[in-house]
Amino acid sequence: MSEKENSRRSFLKQSAVAVGGLLAWTEIGAANQLGAPSRAYGERSPFEKSVRFYPDSATSYSRTPLQDLYGIITPSSLHYEVHHSGVPEIDPDRYELMIHGLVEKPLIFKVADLRRFPAVSRIHFLECAGNSGGEQIGRPAADPQRSHGLLSCSEWAGVPLRTLLDEAGLKPTATWIVAEGADAGRLARSIPMEKVFDDVLVAYGQNGEAIRPEQGYPVRLIVPGWEGNVNIKWLGRVQAVDRPYMTAYETGHYTDLMPDGKARQFTFVMEAKSVITRPAGGQKLEVPGFYEVEGLAWSGRGRIVRVEISTDGGGSWQHAQLNEPVLPKALTRFHMPWRWNGKETSLQSRCSDETGYQQPTREELLAIRGVNATDHYNGIKIWYVHADGKVSHV
Amino acid sequence: MSEKENSRRSFLKQSAVAVGGLLAWTEIGAANQLGAPSRAYGERSPFEKSVRFYPDSATSYSRTPLQDLYGIITPSSLHYEVHHSGVPEIDPDRYELMIHGLVEKPLIFKVADLRRFPAVSRIHFLECAGNSGGEQIGRPAADPQRSHGLLSCSEWAGVPLRTLLDEAGLKPTATWIVAEGADAGRLARSIPMEKVFDDVLVAYGQNGEAIRPEQGYPVRLIVPGWEGNVNIKWLGRVQAVDRPYMTAYETGHYTDLMPDGKARQFTFVMEAKSVITRPAGGQKLEVPGFYEVEGLAWSGRGRIVRVEISTDGGGSWQHAQLNEPVLPKALTRFHMPWRWNGKETSLQSRCSDETGYQQPTREELLAIRGVNATDHYNGIKIWYVHADGKVSHV
Repeated sequence: MSEKENSRRSFLKQSAVAVGGLLAWTEIGAANQLGAPSRAYGERSPFEKSVRFYPDSATSYSRTPLQDLYGIITPSSLHYEVHHSGVPEIDPDRYELMIHGLVEKPLIFKVADLRRFPAVSRIHFLECAGNSGGEQIGRPAADPQRSHGLLSCSEWAGVPLRTLLDEAGLKPTATWIVAEGADAGRLARSIPMEKVFDDVLVAYGQNGEAIRPEQGYPVRLIVPGWEGNVNIKWLGRVQAVDRPYMTAYETGHYTDLMPDGKARQFTFVMEAKSVITRPAGGQKLEVPGFYEVEGLAWSGRGRIVRVEISTDGGGSWQHAQLNEPVLPKALTRFHMPWRWNGKETSLQSRCSDETGYQQPTREELLAIRGVNATDHYNGIKIWYVHADGKVSHV
Repeated sequence: MSEKENSRRSFLKQSAVAVGGLLAWTEIGAANQLGAPSRAYGERSPFEKSVRFYPDSATSYSRTPLQDLYGIITPSSLHYEVHHSGVPEIDPDRYELMIHGLVEKPLIFKVADLRRFPAVSRIHFLECAGNSGGEQIGRPAADPQRSHGLLSCSEWAGVPLRTLLDEAGLKPTATWIVAEGADAGRLARSIPMEKVFDDVLVAYGQNGEAIRPEQGYPVRLIVPGWEGNVNIKWLGRVQAVDRPYMTAYETGHYTDLMPDGKARQFTFVMEAKSVITRPAGGQKLEVPGFYEVEGLAWSGRGRIVRVEISTDGGGSWQHAQLNEPVLPKALTRFHMPWRWNGKETSLQSRCSDETGYQQPTREELLAIRGVNATDHYNGIKIWYVHADGKVSHV
């Protein structure tokens, strides 16, 4: 009997109850009376309880339950959030976006104005620069949500920022923009024009409807593949400038202090990273046998081309299968069959993107970065499988 | 000045308010105090009001507001619904799926069992066979939601039905399945095994979370590209059989009476179709000038390869641009710039899929089908633009 057949047989034995005939089927879960009528705006089943995680009501972030997700789209209601001045309630009829600075003609756009430009839509991940930073400094979290949950993926719709800058008549001296939020803190970041010309969007749509309040309603910047905080939410203005403006959030915040005491600045790109979401911390393997190892991989530089999984502590690596479609700068779901023999072991994944870059181990990363700063940590994540089937962080 | 430049200039003049300097910007829409804290499960902005349409509380369907959507994903809360016995509330812990009939070993699966198989996820449209049937019999609807809104598109996640049939040991004599819902009416349809082997899914995920109640919670069949009603919701059992079983919904319902009095049966595939959603019925062009014509195209046979738009009553046709990604059996969004000269005209789109099939005119379709039945109508939709800018059905 081949390994594959063996896995399948074990799986069958555990997972599905074989019945002798029709009479054994009780239809206990089926309905026998008329159900509910139509609704104007649907809600999830009352049996579904998965939520974003945040420690207390004063918290300025919440984490996506990665272990509960299917496919590559994150439900908007479960999209992670980070905000430094709370979530503003902005009336779209009063909302204005100003384009100014090194342009021939400063312009103000209402939402309806933006809607009249040719729209594009793209599926992209967003990840907070600080996602999984606890892993770097030896404070690993208990489950995928707490370790890697500052990560989500949506279909974003909007107009290329370049189109709006063209309307305003961009001057040749403009080499950067400063984008500023209309939240109370006016969070602002400098972005080089090369990136703006490449793929930056002024977005108003998220997963088919208006962007959610926590994600920047009514209009935000989408800077594909770059750290979350430059994807300015509640976008108030875009100023074309001739240099980075050294805003508070790119000097005091969001710089990476290196071991030699110097700080890296403008570390925009989120490098290739992956995490196993099943089996993962907080879950339990009930019995030895066949399991499907499943997870998410992503890269701010383009497409994921390869994910490998080790089930023996990094001694050997096997290729996982990537679910189609594999899109650039989007979450990619991977999976691989695995037969657990009931003994202690560990599970880890590493991914590579189309630039040839391979996700490093924690040790490789720390040898360069040290532990002074915890942003942009993308080391390999290891889950420990105990002999009783419980899975935990290492 | 080229036509394109002319369009752009007109657009600029209408849409964005040019300002003289920074002082003119009032920041009226921006926040000046701390916003709301994090939430466990997000909701849309209270300013957003788009809803599904259904005539009254006894109605067994609701229509998606196509004219309000962005991109290709339909928000699950706005996904259209059709049900013949209401929406059952099914406890996933009590739910069971039975696979039986011409198999070696009948099996019963719980949701957790299904989750342990290798998962796939795919973006596919669903369309009710009766969508836009009113157009066929000369009762066109006022806007895209009412005319074409029995149409939505989601990322569906689940396990291929073939995998489950393999587990049960499918017998060579099995050439069809009968899939039956666990709703009170036990809606059942026969599906040929060739399609099952091709791409039929037993789905539990929709846009990243559990399938919504109206869409079949906790488990439904996804039969990509085929009429909505064979995508059995609240899937209770799958019986492998050696012939179609001539169920009530494939004899009394969901057959198409032709002009000669014979009825077509098992007309599964939803053929290539498109609809302009902006500018469309119920909307108004405020002033002459530049507009982006936008809409959706789809085909149950594969990818959309071409969408053409006529703005002169069908006299000439221009290629629209297709937004990436263009996925098989999924909605594809198209758009094309157009300059309205302020006179009466009409707007219409026609699409072609990768099989070479081109969406027919209403006249071409009626010459073959007649008006005895209104299912599977996919004729070209024409919107009339009045001199005052109002858009209506023809």
